[in-house]
Amino acid sequence: MTQWLERQASVRDRRGLVRLPLPRAADEQFIDLASNDYLGLAADPRLAEAAGAASALWGAGATSSRLVAGTTRLHLDLEQELAALAGMETALVFSSGYLANIGVITALGGPGTLIVADEHCHASMIDGFRLSRSRTESFTHNSVEEAGRLLAARPEPRALIAVESVYSVLGDEAPLAGLLALAEQHDAMLVVDEAHSLGVTGAGNFQGRGSVAGTALAGHPNVIVTATLSKALGSQGGAVLGSPLLREHLINRARSFIFDTGLAPASAAAALAGVRILRDEPWRAGSVRSNAAALAAGLAPCLEVRGTSVDQTAGAVQSIAMASAESALAATGAARTAGVRIGCFRPPSVPDGISRLRLTARATLTPTEIKDSCAILSGILEELP
Amino acid sequence: MTQWLERQASVRDRRGLVRLPLPRAADEQFIDLASNDYLGLAADPRLAEAAGAASALWGAGATSSRLVAGTTRLHLDLEQELAALAGMETALVFSSGYLANIGVITALGGPGTLIVADEHCHASMIDGFRLSRSRTESFTHNSVEEAGRLLAARPEPRALIAVESVYSVLGDEAPLAGLLALAEQHDAMLVVDEAHSLGVTGAGNFQGRGSVAGTALAGHPNVIVTATLSKALGSQGGAVLGSPLLREHLINRARSFIFDTGLAPASAAAALAGVRILRDEPWRAGSVRSNAAALAAGLAPCLEVRGTSVDQTAGAVQSIAMASAESALAATGAARTAGVRIGCFRPPSVPDGISRLRLTARATLTPTEIKDSCAILSGILEELP
Repeated sequence: MTQWLERQASVRDRRGLVRLPLPRAADEQFIDLASNDYLGLAADPRLAEAAGAASALWGAGATSSRLVAGTTRLHLDLEQELAALAGMETALVFSSGYLANIGVITALGGPGTLIVADEHCHASMIDGFRLSRSRTESFTHNSVEEAGRLLAARPEPRALIAVESVYSVLGDEAPLAGLLALAEQHDAMLVVDEAHSLGVTGAGNFQGRGSVAGTALAGHPNVIVTATLSKALGSQGGAVLGSPLLREHLINRARSFIFDTGLAPASAAAALAGVRILRDEPWRAGSVRSNAAALAAGLAPCLEVRGTSVDQTAGAVQSIAMASAESALAATGAARTAGVRIGCFRPPSVPDGISRLRLTARATLTPTEIKDSCAILSGILEELP
Repeated sequence: MTQWLERQASVRDRRGLVRLPLPRAADEQFIDLASNDYLGLAADPRLAEAAGAASALWGAGATSSRLVAGTTRLHLDLEQELAALAGMETALVFSSGYLANIGVITALGGPGTLIVADEHCHASMIDGFRLSRSRTESFTHNSVEEAGRLLAARPEPRALIAVESVYSVLGDEAPLAGLLALAEQHDAMLVVDEAHSLGVTGAGNFQGRGSVAGTALAGHPNVIVTATLSKALGSQGGAVLGSPLLREHLINRARSFIFDTGLAPASAAAALAGVRILRDEPWRAGSVRSNAAALAAGLAPCLEVRGTSVDQTAGAVQSIAMASAESALAATGAARTAGVRIGCFRPPSVPDGISRLRLTARATLTPTEIKDSCAILSGILEELP
């Protein structure tokens, strides 16, 4: 085993694919275009206060599975207010978004369920497909037509369509209305991961409430939403939102709910504070989108020279294709040295094998930060393939 | 799908297998024999203070994957001190123990790796086996001999032996020394889940440091430990402990590490406070074991009447077989009404299909609490099959 590990390590090294979890210091100053803290809530003192108070009142940990002694009033309050925010009937909170996706897909999957999945679905959904023992067919990214063909040809009595409303790496949107029409036509459930849209997308009365609420699909009997508490909501954890019948089924059948310690009270309280801020300060979602537009505009001249552009209409994530993993890594390192943190996504973390820079806008970016980071990144990109 | 969910719900109802996450209130008084808070640290004000301070300093969430911006100095400090406590070279922290098990098994598994697993392994390990695409063979609970036969017959170049040092439901111990001898003989890695032993087992200089350290196996090149931060350590999260080469491999290959948001700073700080308390106050591990012995002694007369007994030598968990799911549920409900919380484990949460009561001792139980709960439980058990 050791020799095998050594060989794997040397292959990674040769291909420029070694990853390192570089730590940040508490007092470090940088422009954050890397994290998923879209609304700037992770550093909001109201979340920290809620986390501290909940640890003191409820304890630092949930102490066991949600089904044994790990459910507090706080967990149920969070579930109610999160469901109300997203316009769904109920929510069930998991200790991570990863486990929420695994939980709902395995609990609804199995030999009697066909899964039809967008080829860009997140790793956590893919792990759910594999664990579910369902036959799983992937369709060309965003191709409603291909998804429809797969559903029409199925022998299985049940089916799930699995998508993300905003895709994590490329940042583009799913055609939700077309997919829901398919789900109705073929008696399938549409499972929508709102990890990168909750807090960001939705307009008018649904400002920041995600793409499902924003496109008036929330509460539809064929729609299930999965969400994370660790991105726009600034905390940790995940949730599945849907009917009371679905919630009861997950409580009884989702292994990643049943056999996992409940979410820590600090994180549940911070997420609840995040839900309330998102509800009461809807301007934040508008800010993240206008900041994303400003970033895209600032980078447009440099990207035009490269013969590319970024699509920034969907949400906060912008993706820039690079010629190689080395090139993406060099750009990320140079940006870091210049005080700008950006994401570096290389195989196997990209859906199409193309190494990319991933920039995320946040509601709390200042105009100066946006201008400075565009200038820094443009300068770096001019020098790299 | 809705009709299928309704049918499933009615089958559960008919079989007495419906689960409900009953919430606890913050001011509720009860004797806790249900949680995994073995050392009573979840409610320790030092953990709550650490969680609150970390949220204020580092933010309420890690904001992204550990590989993007989700690693803080705090995470690395926790990893170092946890590894030192357990006598292992390195540790890598995941957002839950569930994801730690999935991560290490999938990263080491695959078509070239045989997995030989005790039939009582936890759901999170089983999900790892399934996801790994390894051929997986289970052996009769604690049968070193059968594990050896499976390893000897393998065509695969690599192998993992997967066990728990103390099993979660039955509470009994794995024969670690025999299993390690096998691992050496067959060039396999022994993966030991210390979820229910870290903080509880180990004596002398290794008081509370877990069964691997306690049996002088820590740091052995064929041993990998997985741990949880959400049981004896009172917080949330999980970890994999092993060589620097293994850690680097997991950082690069464990999907449940790469694609998951990092552990919240509050939970990392609380776990670190827990590690320090465990190191500095080793008497706690002694207390949990003597309280487990006192519970077993107090229940012995009543269990003798039932023709059974509990094995309390391994750790904190004691398991009482019941005649049916209904009987286990009735006992749990009656105990709850009388102010004692115990665990009710029914299929599919039991390794052998037998419904059980699961009692856990804690370091902070008082002699009166032990005496009262034994009297209450004995009274209930006399009335039930």
